[in-house]
Amino acid sequence: MKLSVIGIGPGGGIDLTGRARAALDGCDAIIGYTVYVDLLKNDYPDKEIKTTPMRKEVDRCRMAVEEAAAGRNVAMVCSGDPGVYGMAGLCYEVAQEYAPIEIEVIPGITAACGGAAVLGAPLMHDFAVISLSDLLTPWEKIEARLKGAAAADFVLCLYNPASHKRPDYLQRACDILLAAKPAETVCGFVRSIGREGEAATVLTLGELRDAEVDMFTTVFVGNSQTKVINGKMVTPRGYLQREQ
Amino acid sequence: MKLSVIGIGPGGGIDLTGRARAALDGCDAIIGYTVYVDLLKNDYPDKEIKTTPMRKEVDRCRMAVEEAAAGRNVAMVCSGDPGVYGMAGLCYEVAQEYAPIEIEVIPGITAACGGAAVLGAPLMHDFAVISLSDLLTPWEKIEARLKGAAAADFVLCLYNPASHKRPDYLQRACDILLAAKPAETVCGFVRSIGREGEAATVLTLGELRDAEVDMFTTVFVGNSQTKVINGKMVTPRGYLQREQ
Repeated sequence: MKLSVIGIGPGGGIDLTGRARAALDGCDAIIGYTVYVDLLKNDYPDKEIKTTPMRKEVDRCRMAVEEAAAGRNVAMVCSGDPGVYGMAGLCYEVAQEYAPIEIEVIPGITAACGGAAVLGAPLMHDFAVISLSDLLTPWEKIEARLKGAAAADFVLCLYNPASHKRPDYLQRACDILLAAKPAETVCGFVRSIGREGEAATVLTLGELRDAEVDMFTTVFVGNSQTKVINGKMVTPRGYLQREQ
Repeated sequence: MKLSVIGIGPGGGIDLTGRARAALDGCDAIIGYTVYVDLLKNDYPDKEIKTTPMRKEVDRCRMAVEEAAAGRNVAMVCSGDPGVYGMAGLCYEVAQEYAPIEIEVIPGITAACGGAAVLGAPLMHDFAVISLSDLLTPWEKIEARLKGAAAADFVLCLYNPASHKRPDYLQRACDILLAAKPAETVCGFVRSIGREGEAATVLTLGELRDAEVDMFTTVFVGNSQTKVINGKMVTPRGYLQREQ
């Protein structure tokens, strides 16, 4: 009947919006990647739960669409926001193969916003969000976007900065950025946003190049105005500067 | 004592996270721009409320910081996410002038994520967020960012696409984008996200150039892969394409 593609925010639980809670309350079944469903299932002990492993994205969306086409109200949960590197687009694509269903996307706090809040206020000015994963995107395209964003002085937020198979991707990205930006550019990263073990680091672009990050880390690279205030990463928007 | 800078999402109410609700429940006073506080005040009839008019951003942050420095728990509310063109950065800047206080930023659903969910799934791939307001940013910098983002094939999300004083800014932005992108590029805009009268339009870049938008509208410009599926704006990430 209806497929709700729901963002549970970075950590689930307290990060859910009222809209997400209402959709979960009203669903017949919850579908998602095991790790994300685990963040929620204690809150919904009576709901039917269906999980699929990592990297089975197409199977997961097909399962959700099929259940909805069979007349059920399905909640598919995604970490962060389903509309930012999540499952929302794939659900629309897959649904074309089935009888018409209603799809609604319920946004959640994406890692760019959740991580920024932990670091301070790095995204106060124009910013670009780039995934460093080349599983689905040629590295040349990622490289062109890094160069374009650095040249135009965007603040950058980098998703998927590394994985076991790509341990040096953040280093490669930093080398590209260092060709256009000073090594002193203020940067930051947050690991496990909103979850147990959340940890934030503020450092320079030169230091970021050699930092150890993993797939649970979100990285921020400041623009030319970004500074450190009391240990926080802050990009001024210009209100105070206008007054002076 | 503590200043919580809280994002209430696009429409307030049902868009608040549990974390935002908890901070509001625990505060002594709620401070914000009148329109946003009005979205909340029925939920918090017993809280002290202080509002400031539009464009008095520095005064608003000073008031919040002063209250917190005087020993109170203050909730400053912002539309969307306080970390995206909101008050988070300015609070950190202003707080430097006062006795040390604790500042926490509680993220909310920003218009990029809220509007994307209404339109479908336009932000599934790398994207850039640009404000077209030149109140605080020289137009030349905005123009350079539009050019850079178009050249690198980012999906674009445009905040503040027009105002009474800037009725033609979206048209000027579209002319810049049309120099680098086909007129058939899939675009969309959403007015009053999450509020009464919410309305979404999917159209081409050529049509967007002549569309009427206002300061309550958020605009999305697709990348080279963005398409229309059942009236929704969808940017494929490439999962299905990988399978084929």
